[in-house]
Amino acid sequence: MRLSQFHLRTEKETPADAEITSHKLMLKAGMVRKLAAGLYTWSPLGLRVLRKVEAVVREEMDAAGAIEMAMPSVQPKELWEETGRWAKFGPQLLKIRDRKEQDYCFTPTAEEAVTDFFRQEFSSYKQLPVNFYQVTTKFRDEIRPRFGVMRAREFVMKDAYSFHVSDDDLQREYRNMYDAYTRIFTRLGLKFRAVFADTGAIGGSASHEFHVLADSGEDALAFSESSDYAANVELAEAVSPGPRPAATETLRRVETPMQKTCEDVAALLGIPLQRTVKSVAVTGDDGFVLALVRGDHTVNEIKLAKLPGLADYRLATEAEILEHLGSTPGFLGPLNPRKKIRVVADRSVAAMADFVVGANEAGFHIAGVNWGRDLPEPDDTADIRNVQAGDASPDGNGTLALARGIEVGHVFALGRKYSEAMGCTVLDADGRAVHPAMGCYGIGVSRIVAAAIEQNHDEAGIRWPDAMAPWRAVVCMINPKGNAEVTAAAEALHREFNAAGIDTAFDDRGLRPGAMFADMELIGIPHRIVVSERGLAAGTFEYRARSAAEAEQLDRAAVLARIAGG
Amino acid sequence: MRLSQFHLRTEKETPADAEITSHKLMLKAGMVRKLAAGLYTWSPLGLRVLRKVEAVVREEMDAAGAIEMAMPSVQPKELWEETGRWAKFGPQLLKIRDRKEQDYCFTPTAEEAVTDFFRQEFSSYKQLPVNFYQVTTKFRDEIRPRFGVMRAREFVMKDAYSFHVSDDDLQREYRNMYDAYTRIFTRLGLKFRAVFADTGAIGGSASHEFHVLADSGEDALAFSESSDYAANVELAEAVSPGPRPAATETLRRVETPMQKTCEDVAALLGIPLQRTVKSVAVTGDDGFVLALVRGDHTVNEIKLAKLPGLADYRLATEAEILEHLGSTPGFLGPLNPRKKIRVVADRSVAAMADFVVGANEAGFHIAGVNWGRDLPEPDDTADIRNVQAGDASPDGNGTLALARGIEVGHVFALGRKYSEAMGCTVLDADGRAVHPAMGCYGIGVSRIVAAAIEQNHDEAGIRWPDAMAPWRAVVCMINPKGNAEVTAAAEALHREFNAAGIDTAFDDRGLRPGAMFADMELIGIPHRIVVSERGLAAGTFEYRARSAAEAEQLDRAAVLARIAGG
Repeated sequence: MRLSQFHLRTEKETPADAEITSHKLMLKAGMVRKLAAGLYTWSPLGLRVLRKVEAVVREEMDAAGAIEMAMPSVQPKELWEETGRWAKFGPQLLKIRDRKEQDYCFTPTAEEAVTDFFRQEFSSYKQLPVNFYQVTTKFRDEIRPRFGVMRAREFVMKDAYSFHVSDDDLQREYRNMYDAYTRIFTRLGLKFRAVFADTGAIGGSASHEFHVLADSGEDALAFSESSDYAANVELAEAVSPGPRPAATETLRRVETPMQKTCEDVAALLGIPLQRTVKSVAVTGDDGFVLALVRGDHTVNEIKLAKLPGLADYRLATEAEILEHLGSTPGFLGPLNPRKKIRVVADRSVAAMADFVVGANEAGFHIAGVNWGRDLPEPDDTADIRNVQAGDASPDGNGTLALARGIEVGHVFALGRKYSEAMGCTVLDADGRAVHPAMGCYGIGVSRIVAAAIEQNHDEAGIRWPDAMAPWRAVVCMINPKGNAEVTAAAEALHREFNAAGIDTAFDDRGLRPGAMFADMELIGIPHRIVVSERGLAAGTFEYRARSAAEAEQLDRAAVLARIAGG
Repeated sequence: MRLSQFHLRTEKETPADAEITSHKLMLKAGMVRKLAAGLYTWSPLGLRVLRKVEAVVREEMDAAGAIEMAMPSVQPKELWEETGRWAKFGPQLLKIRDRKEQDYCFTPTAEEAVTDFFRQEFSSYKQLPVNFYQVTTKFRDEIRPRFGVMRAREFVMKDAYSFHVSDDDLQREYRNMYDAYTRIFTRLGLKFRAVFADTGAIGGSASHEFHVLADSGEDALAFSESSDYAANVELAEAVSPGPRPAATETLRRVETPMQKTCEDVAALLGIPLQRTVKSVAVTGDDGFVLALVRGDHTVNEIKLAKLPGLADYRLATEAEILEHLGSTPGFLGPLNPRKKIRVVADRSVAAMADFVVGANEAGFHIAGVNWGRDLPEPDDTADIRNVQAGDASPDGNGTLALARGIEVGHVFALGRKYSEAMGCTVLDADGRAVHPAMGCYGIGVSRIVAAAIEQNHDEAGIRWPDAMAPWRAVVCMINPKGNAEVTAAAEALHREFNAAGIDTAFDDRGLRPGAMFADMELIGIPHRIVVSERGLAAGTFEYRARSAAEAEQLDRAAVLARIAGG
């Protein structure tokens, strides 16, 4: 592609309204332009990257035996009511009323549509298993669309749905898709991890998320440094602590006039933070609850919400705290509440002795606290904390490390939720009508583009992995005098590289070298070859990998080897 | 592709709810399944065909210098209000309200969005010309979706938009796109015609429609058999007749008791139909109008509506006819109206002498009528009739023939309508802000699939042109005994054909030959090769072109030559 015939428009200024690196760089590189909140036009440059990702996804899905098809974007309410999701999906489901006053939605996912297709097309176990996929535009009416295409409302998703007579066969395909996803993200050149995940609103029995690792990721991941254990911190189990030691201290009231946090109290008392207990006051279905975690731990909201009566909990108000504990925040604790309260202790807290809690009196804490002796045993003891770096891995192998990730893929073993709700059956080998087990497998195609940038960038701009780059290489021509030999050499290189299957651009726009190189670095082309009068005279080309600090003078064969090997 | 690993589901019965051949055959072949009115799921088989069409469209658009990008499906009301099309587009525009009560539409076309993109990206004439295209899902909320994907509500459209500093450059690109479209439809193997067309709701100054020719087509086309003149009958000019002959007959009242049509009157009087005049009573903005065309002609509603006061005309009621003419339908004419009326004569009627009209009295006509002598000259004389086969071509070359077509492409020279409405300018060579001229160019990608079937089918099913077929060839294996040599030979052929770049399927489903051949004929594979024990023994393969009456026994080289040459 000759760039003089393409549309490139880079910007020097960093856009003011972009918060994260990938959004800033996509705007600076001119990959997308905003049409409205959460709605982006993909420029020719951006679309090239999106298509590279789509192609890898398709190739690996095909190779894994999945079959591509395409379902409508606009889907009728009746279909979504069969599974109850018309109501359950909530306001993220973009609803549409047509000219005949019929209700539809812009599909965010297609379990209902594919199950409807399946029940029209399939009748026998002999036709199974099957795995259908599509790469289409989806819509989620996010309440706060942001971060560019990272959390856009309209986006490109690959969604696949498999059908099976047995759970075992579903597990086999689940693993098959897990492996295909691993190949996809590996081919795309991304550092990623597959982690156990919550099954969330889609439901089902097993689920893994695939995360691109990046410091800016919204999700916290925990993984063992000694095994393949990995999980979203939302779910990662904090292993059970050892038995509770015996009490050795006596109860004492300590003055903590300015010390409202565990850190400050521990510092004042000269004790480890691990000896303090944090009290978090919340309100659930049955009233006031005090949740306790160790001073160096944090409450895991998802785990806490799994306890009875806390599915929809919220933080308690100051009035509720005063009513139940008689105190202001900063000095809360489970001793001497003003009213009868429910105490939920993290397992590590239940295993503590001689600990420090708030006194329920401004300016005071109580040290040397012991369960049973000074206060009743907790009403509930459960894993309600987030794991942290250095915790033992739940699989017994090594300790956990933490990383941040951007979710770009998700595999679910759905089971029979949809086939049962929609009355979808096939005849099994004995002639009985059975509900097929289903799996579903999603990849956020457009989100991958942004996630890859979060992981791969520097001061100069984007650093695309080879497989995702708009072009793998660019031939930059420096030819201010219009030397015909230089032009011919650059054109020949451009032609030969493309003929060799290396997707190569030719920067023939006539920019000065500085501006041209800055553009190519900003848009992240992995391999740059400069053709100039001086180079031709020496019989070499200037080659620079996007990731390299320095350019090299190489002959044609060496350049080709670098690009092909990259 | 091994068909045992694919999803094929053909049906023997013709679906009851399909009206036209392409819809019936697409359902029988299992290419699409209805999700809701005007919304279709594309099965893996259907999607293969759709993708073949998309690929040809993309290749030719790229070759013509257009640059692909992608705009959102959901677009904000504010954008569409800039051009007034939010209101003007009417109920075909599918409107959407999001969770924040903001209004959007599901885009049926993207003039506004691309102009918005352009005004953000372009500032100088030096960046022009440019032509952007996309291949995306569009939506038109048809009041009566029908005929399957031929008139679906959700469909795939390629839309392109070009921007130019001068009208001349727009004309050059218009021609460039016209030529690209010609290559696209030629490569797809379709019989088609480009015709002059009305610019309709999108507006603009010049427009051609591309029609796939098929007897079932909704549009009537007129074209010269001696030149490249072609036009939609809606627009085709009926050439001006010669001068009016002198009157030779006297006026006489003739009894026509049962004769209400021109045909019957001409038969009764023993005169040519061309001597009679048909009177069509309509009501326009300014009241009653009698439109006259020759007995063998028909009124062209589009042309008639272009006359002053008739933009929104309707047929007159019997009461209005009685009030103005004093007669019941069947005997109407311009002589002796009860009230003063406006008479609009087609040019051919104005050039008649000694003609026959209704007497405005049940059971009577008047013969020997002459303008000026028996009644005033017409209030308006205009071209208000449809052309018919045998008319002189408006370009002076030969006579017109008629054909029916299905519109699959449209090129428009839009001019500055959108750039002016949206305040979109660039600086010209003199530093002045000018509105760029625009062209837009659409292809109904999913509609082409149906149109191709309307043009190419027989009793057994679809007959795809090579370029659109889901597979160009199929290797059918007949191997009831499970002979390993037969399997190996079939597999080898399948592998070799694909390696040679011939997209080939392998029917390894183990069906009986009759059922297998019927499936392959129904789904329209152009080239069929049968591998069987008997053939292997003879060293030949049975080859049959989908279009051929008989199969042939050929060796491998001859088979390859047939397929490649096809």
